[in-house]
Amino acid sequence: MGGDRGPAAVVAGISRSASKNPDIAFILHGPEAELDRLVKKRKLSDRVTIVDAQNVVHMDDKPSQALRKGEGTSMWSAIESVRNGDASVAVSCGNTGALMLLSTVRLRKLPGVKRPAIAVLWPSTNPSGSNVMLDVGADIKADENDLLQYALMGASYARNGFDIHRPRIGLLNVGTEEFKGRTELKTASDLISQNADDANFEYVGFVEGNDIPSNKVDVIVTDGFTGNIALKSAEGTAKLIRGFLREAFNHSILSRLATLLAYTSLRRLSNRIDPRRVNGGVFLGLNGTVVKSHGSADATSIAAAVKLALQLTQSDFNQKLAARVASITPPDQDQ
Amino acid sequence: MGGDRGPAAVVAGISRSASKNPDIAFILHGPEAELDRLVKKRKLSDRVTIVDAQNVVHMDDKPSQALRKGEGTSMWSAIESVRNGDASVAVSCGNTGALMLLSTVRLRKLPGVKRPAIAVLWPSTNPSGSNVMLDVGADIKADENDLLQYALMGASYARNGFDIHRPRIGLLNVGTEEFKGRTELKTASDLISQNADDANFEYVGFVEGNDIPSNKVDVIVTDGFTGNIALKSAEGTAKLIRGFLREAFNHSILSRLATLLAYTSLRRLSNRIDPRRVNGGVFLGLNGTVVKSHGSADATSIAAAVKLALQLTQSDFNQKLAARVASITPPDQDQ
Repeated sequence: MGGDRGPAAVVAGISRSASKNPDIAFILHGPEAELDRLVKKRKLSDRVTIVDAQNVVHMDDKPSQALRKGEGTSMWSAIESVRNGDASVAVSCGNTGALMLLSTVRLRKLPGVKRPAIAVLWPSTNPSGSNVMLDVGADIKADENDLLQYALMGASYARNGFDIHRPRIGLLNVGTEEFKGRTELKTASDLISQNADDANFEYVGFVEGNDIPSNKVDVIVTDGFTGNIALKSAEGTAKLIRGFLREAFNHSILSRLATLLAYTSLRRLSNRIDPRRVNGGVFLGLNGTVVKSHGSADATSIAAAVKLALQLTQSDFNQKLAARVASITPPDQDQ
Repeated sequence: MGGDRGPAAVVAGISRSASKNPDIAFILHGPEAELDRLVKKRKLSDRVTIVDAQNVVHMDDKPSQALRKGEGTSMWSAIESVRNGDASVAVSCGNTGALMLLSTVRLRKLPGVKRPAIAVLWPSTNPSGSNVMLDVGADIKADENDLLQYALMGASYARNGFDIHRPRIGLLNVGTEEFKGRTELKTASDLISQNADDANFEYVGFVEGNDIPSNKVDVIVTDGFTGNIALKSAEGTAKLIRGFLREAFNHSILSRLATLLAYTSLRRLSNRIDPRRVNGGVFLGLNGTVVKSHGSADATSIAAAVKLALQLTQSDFNQKLAARVASITPPDQDQ
């Protein structure tokens, strides 16, 4: 209910997923009457169970407000359905901060995890077409042990979600040697390096912002503040270039003709740089999987988020991730 | 001498600038025999003075190493020519950290400036076609007073370099309200807001990574670490999309034909997203202007950096910037 486009977009997205994946069923959380009407219109009644929830967490609610009004919201109800085992995974287009807080409070952190993270997929020149970056959750601070845990969780995600047997992990930093200076980054680099063999990943060391979409790494580890800035800067750049591209092809009669000729190629390009196609941040480190879709998600985006959720459930990765984190507990974990 | 492509690219760039701007003269620093040969080949002898410098600061030298070998390098010599008034501005493709350290040591900081900054131009949907962002210098830490000074210097740069009478300043942060948490960012926001009227700029408040290339701001203020990550992430994204674009247009015979038809439009697009066209970071806060060109700069990039250097010299902006910083000294400046 909390997405920018309301429940109609969600039901439209579900409709696409349902026709592509005959085996999955959906539990929709929100005002029963409204959802029922939408579901009937799409002829999805036999695939969808509706759980009535009259309240909504809004985009401008602070996470603490969302927690206070908590029960009775569609977001709470969706998380609850994962908590009690009715659902295998929750997908939400709502307020990210609220979703993270509610998920953490209700699902609780995995044993040994101090700070859960949000991992996103980033289009790249990798064979798999995307890299994983975490954390992008805008959290204020990550110390060296948090960054080590992000490396472990990111490696597990890449291995189980994308079949990369021995993922390459990089730690995001700035370029100039002299300034590789934040103490927690140097310490984190040592810690991650020491754990690479045991956790079956390859540590490639520090990487820079321009390496994020490259084939040099599979997983980029950073704190939530820096990750959020990098992600949004890249999104802004992609949007700027899309605008320039549109202008360029509307510029003259010849270029419009060219657009017609190049239609399928342009469409393929557009799909590759379209953030809706790789929609879905995954919360790592909780007892249960939560996929965060963009707030402005449309049917295409929702379907992409559901697809990711399905992949994760089928690979049973959250159990494997839990085992991985538990196997390597940094020395001062319990401080 | 320290650029990736060596002095031939520099002389080729100078040659372009020289033919476009009949009034400027050049002082080239480096091994005399080698430069003399290149200059004669380009028939530039009447426009260029060569200052012999046998040593080179390399890309992988640490700034402290560069400072130790200092005198006798082409970088040192170029900065010295600004220091003693022979040159109006220095342009270098060399090692950024070394250039910043040598410039700071030899030119010294402007009165009242605690931490000089590197400002870059960022393609945007602004009427001027680009926004200014600072600092991108990879410096480890900026406190609230440093960020206020960046706002003042950035405003002065936008006003004098790009004729924006009342620049709009934004402070880079992450999106979610709850996590607008780094204390120095909150304090910096208050400080910048308080000084907006006196310093004749408009403070638009916090902006996010996707606002950097937007028409919401003219100047984006951030610490060097975050700025460097944002800049490199955007560069990586632009490069990724250029690669996708190339693939898309090579995909079929029809799309190749389309490429021919759309040639001028594609070329215009390519120019707009080509980082070489907006090449040139400017060091702000020193007694003298230094323009940092990309290490991998080719003739086009060098010419762009020289063009920027010329604009800055003609607008006499460094004197105006000095006056602006001196007029507003934060209370604890001398601590």
